[in-house]
Amino acid sequence: MKHESRYERLREKTHEVIFEADTFWGKTFDVVLLVAIVLSVIAVMLESVLEIRLKYGNILFIAEWIFTALFTVEYIARLWSVNKPWKYATSFYGVIDLLSILPAFIALFISGAQAFLILRSIRLIRVFRVFKLVRFLGEASVLKEALRASRAKIIVFVGSVFIMVVILGTMMYIIEGGENGFTSIPKSIYWAVVTLTTVGYGDIAPQTPLGQGLATLIMILGYGIIAVPTGIVTSEMAKKGNIIHSNTRSCQHCGAEEHSDKASYCYKCGSEM
Amino acid sequence: MKHESRYERLREKTHEVIFEADTFWGKTFDVVLLVAIVLSVIAVMLESVLEIRLKYGNILFIAEWIFTALFTVEYIARLWSVNKPWKYATSFYGVIDLLSILPAFIALFISGAQAFLILRSIRLIRVFRVFKLVRFLGEASVLKEALRASRAKIIVFVGSVFIMVVILGTMMYIIEGGENGFTSIPKSIYWAVVTLTTVGYGDIAPQTPLGQGLATLIMILGYGIIAVPTGIVTSEMAKKGNIIHSNTRSCQHCGAEEHSDKASYCYKCGSEM
Amino acid sequence: MKHESRYERLREKTHEVIFEADTFWGKTFDVVLLVAIVLSVIAVMLESVLEIRLKYGNILFIAEWIFTALFTVEYIARLWSVNKPWKYATSFYGVIDLLSILPAFIALFISGAQAFLILRSIRLIRVFRVFKLVRFLGEASVLKEALRASRAKIIVFVGSVFIMVVILGTMMYIIEGGENGFTSIPKSIYWAVVTLTTVGYGDIAPQTPLGQGLATLIMILGYGIIAVPTGIVTSEMAKKGNIIHSNTRSCQHCGAEEHSDKASYCYKCGSEM
Amino acid sequence: MKHESRYERLREKTHEVIFEADTFWGKTFDVVLLVAIVLSVIAVMLESVLEIRLKYGNILFIAEWIFTALFTVEYIARLWSVNKPWKYATSFYGVIDLLSILPAFIALFISGAQAFLILRSIRLIRVFRVFKLVRFLGEASVLKEALRASRAKIIVFVGSVFIMVVILGTMMYIIEGGENGFTSIPKSIYWAVVTLTTVGYGDIAPQTPLGQGLATLIMILGYGIIAVPTGIVTSEMAKKGNIIHSNTRSCQHCGAEEHSDKASYCYKCGSEM
Repeated sequence: MKHESRYERLREKTHEVIFEADTFWGKTFDVVLLVAIVLSVIAVMLESVLEIRLKYGNILFIAEWIFTALFTVEYIARLWSVNKPWKYATSFYGVIDLLSILPAFIALFISGAQAFLILRSIRLIRVFRVFKLVRFLGEASVLKEALRASRAKIIVFVGSVFIMVVILGTMMYIIEGGENGFTSIPKSIYWAVVTLTTVGYGDIAPQTPLGQGLATLIMILGYGIIAVPTGIVTSEMAKKGNIIHSNTRSCQHCGAEEHSDKASYCYKCGSEM
Repeated sequence: MKHESRYERLREKTHEVIFEADTFWGKTFDVVLLVAIVLSVIAVMLESVLEIRLKYGNILFIAEWIFTALFTVEYIARLWSVNKPWKYATSFYGVIDLLSILPAFIALFISGAQAFLILRSIRLIRVFRVFKLVRFLGEASVLKEALRASRAKIIVFVGSVFIMVVILGTMMYIIEGGENGFTSIPKSIYWAVVTLTTVGYGDIAPQTPLGQGLATLIMILGYGIIAVPTGIVTSEMAKKGNIIHSNTRSCQHCGAEEHSDKASYCYKCGSEM
Repeated sequence: MKHESRYERLREKTHEVIFEADTFWGKTFDVVLLVAIVLSVIAVMLESVLEIRLKYGNILFIAEWIFTALFTVEYIARLWSVNKPWKYATSFYGVIDLLSILPAFIALFISGAQAFLILRSIRLIRVFRVFKLVRFLGEASVLKEALRASRAKIIVFVGSVFIMVVILGTMMYIIEGGENGFTSIPKSIYWAVVTLTTVGYGDIAPQTPLGQGLATLIMILGYGIIAVPTGIVTSEMAKKGNIIHSNTRSCQHCGAEEHSDKASYCYKCGSEM
Repeated sequence: MKHESRYERLREKTHEVIFEADTFWGKTFDVVLLVAIVLSVIAVMLESVLEIRLKYGNILFIAEWIFTALFTVEYIARLWSVNKPWKYATSFYGVIDLLSILPAFIALFISGAQAFLILRSIRLIRVFRVFKLVRFLGEASVLKEALRASRAKIIVFVGSVFIMVVILGTMMYIIEGGENGFTSIPKSIYWAVVTLTTVGYGDIAPQTPLGQGLATLIMILGYGIIAVPTGIVTSEMAKKGNIIHSNTRSCQHCGAEEHSDKASYCYKCGSEM
């Protein structure tokens, strides 16, 4: 145990309160922070509603600056208390923390930048930590893992869909023409995406029998190929689930894991199990 | 067999008729009750249609009070005949039974409360019991089990979707602005949900090329990530199905499991089962 | 071999041509019949288009009666040539065959009945037989089997969805009211179904902030619970697939099938495999 | 090593540069080609936008002919350098390459043919080769394999859906009639597809209570049966995944299969693998 100055102890204490959630003050800090984030997000949302801005604009303006001051102090405290400030500043959370205060300052010079304050909502994912929902983060990593494993298949799928909508959209542009709303190829491609993904706004809709016939094909196509991403993620997830399932056994001799449920001998060292 | 007063016997008989469905009268009671529930739900629905209310308002008003009287008597009879009235009153069915009569009485003082009578429709789930569809309830519990097991993953997923729509909605608000219907951030978030879930009303639709481009991304995103909840529930359900199907039997001699349902001999050591 | 009259031989020959598809004439008959069915379905469709009816009404009227005469002759020939006419008449195909000629005759007395001629399109499923696509019918039976096995779960699911939309629709009726298109509870329930199933016509859309908030919840709900029927059918189909997969082994001693892939002994008679 | 003329060597070099991607020049050529394809697709899209055509029409017209010249030279070079020109010309890529230059020449005689230049976008799939994303093509073949294996089931499903929408569309035509937008049977079938696939434009929507009731049924049907194609593809994909993952290794001593990828010893008999 080395000698620590008062300054050092304060810094350590700050770090404990801000970055950890196991002590009473650490938990309290996190809960207060979360409430502040939620409130600040709500404030930005409310400010965008005309009627509310006209009535309570001043209050919201003040509230916004209080939140910005709070988050700025917090950001500086984080930078100060952490051992490797640069590592924190360039980490995912660090960038998000910075993005949640920057727009307010930029808005002093450029009007409209305030809307970007909504980026603060990304900070909401801290909620998982506060309520000690580590299990939730574990689940999230299973989801992320399944998505990563099926990344290549998903890119192939999205690429094929992209080429599909370009061709189908152009065909509709040729068939329907500008008078029915298909005024350009990009707009027709936009329509093809709206239809293929079964969103179907209805702001543009085919009017000619041929166009409606092709639209029917696109819809059934979209209805059918939604099975593909689902199939990809599901089979990947089922596989992941199996690996987790079989991870409970380990060889007493060599410590190898991932044994089959029916294994009588270790697959790695050959000793009986 | 202890001596029972006439009062006690009546109470027991009432309990048998109301709560059980094995005897003739128990079954009859349940069928009559179900018909009454269905009719009362239909009555409330019909009353909300202007043309019907103008014509048959009186009849429906009377019908409603007859149903309320009936359900009130039934509720009191249940409370009276059951051994632990408080346990029943606080049970799921008890609360639903109370909720199905309360609005009629409250409507005497506050107009409009009648619409809440529709809560009676929740009572329709009794249908599963009457037709002895216990098997159906078993299936329901498999569904519930699968949903519960994947709860954590679903919360993570919904949370991520929530943050996603907040950010995407705000971006559309900045890009499109009020003149194209994106009058506020909450409304733009509402639009983002409409689009991401592939509902696509079309009451608000992007008009600028940039907005339509971002909308295209949101649609493809929504089309793709629907695979995630499906993958979660499916893999969970497949796991459940396997466990139910296979893990119940094991060989007394060698302990091997995962026997076929029709097995008479162990597939591993050949000994009789 | 018993003596057969000329009449009997004609009847047998007719049966062979009409009901079987292995001989040259049997195949030819089926192909001609299919073309006739497709043409008659197209004729009924075209007749419903005003411009075409005005121009070619007479031709279509004649065509329709030619098809009806053809199908009537075919129906009588089937009844006559088959050994158990009543069994055919009450079979699935028999009823469909009758339904495809009846409307034309009924239309002589009741106008508008012609539209029911479209029921002829059901006869299109004969296509699978003609092209000897027995394999396709096998696949269809796998689909049917999977749907039947998951019937109970599907009923529970649809029942829950039904109760859900009744309650959500009523809530929207209370929140939005008639001025925003939610004029009655049945109409609001209709809207709730449109939203929950992610169809989203947009003919009725919530206008109040509270209504849009609830609509958001319904959409996310609908987006999420679509995973449930998918999960049911998928896990059922995967199970079916496995059973088919393991059906390739059979015991030489007792002939039992459906052995586990790893079985060393027959699960039924205990003999080594 | 046989003697080669200068002509032969040039031809071989050209083949290497155009068809292969391993050398520096081969890679450079592919990247340049890809950029040209992307730019030409964008040029065709932009030309269809009225405002852009009016302003930059001349530039786009020149750009288009430069791209066409480039692709024509490339096509001739491919035909010349390859050993079996006819085989290339009739291959998938060969046809696509031809289709990407033909429309420009046809447009000299028939106006509007230019739009077909968008077929060039199909050439984008070359992207997978350039970035050496052979792995991606492997994934694509897994997808293709899963789709091919489930082809029969998908045809049965699409056929059933087709018959379903014909009947449901006709029923809506009878119920709603022309005054509510259901002016003909083909249009009503179009509406039925829009509804069943949960696209829901809203350009046609039922107005009568009976029509809305039937629409509700169609929506729930469409919401439910989307599970069928998903189930088909998923179970097929899961099967494929399992076969790839597990069936490749077997013990030389006891023949046991389904070994883990990391196994050094058989889990059943303990002998080295």
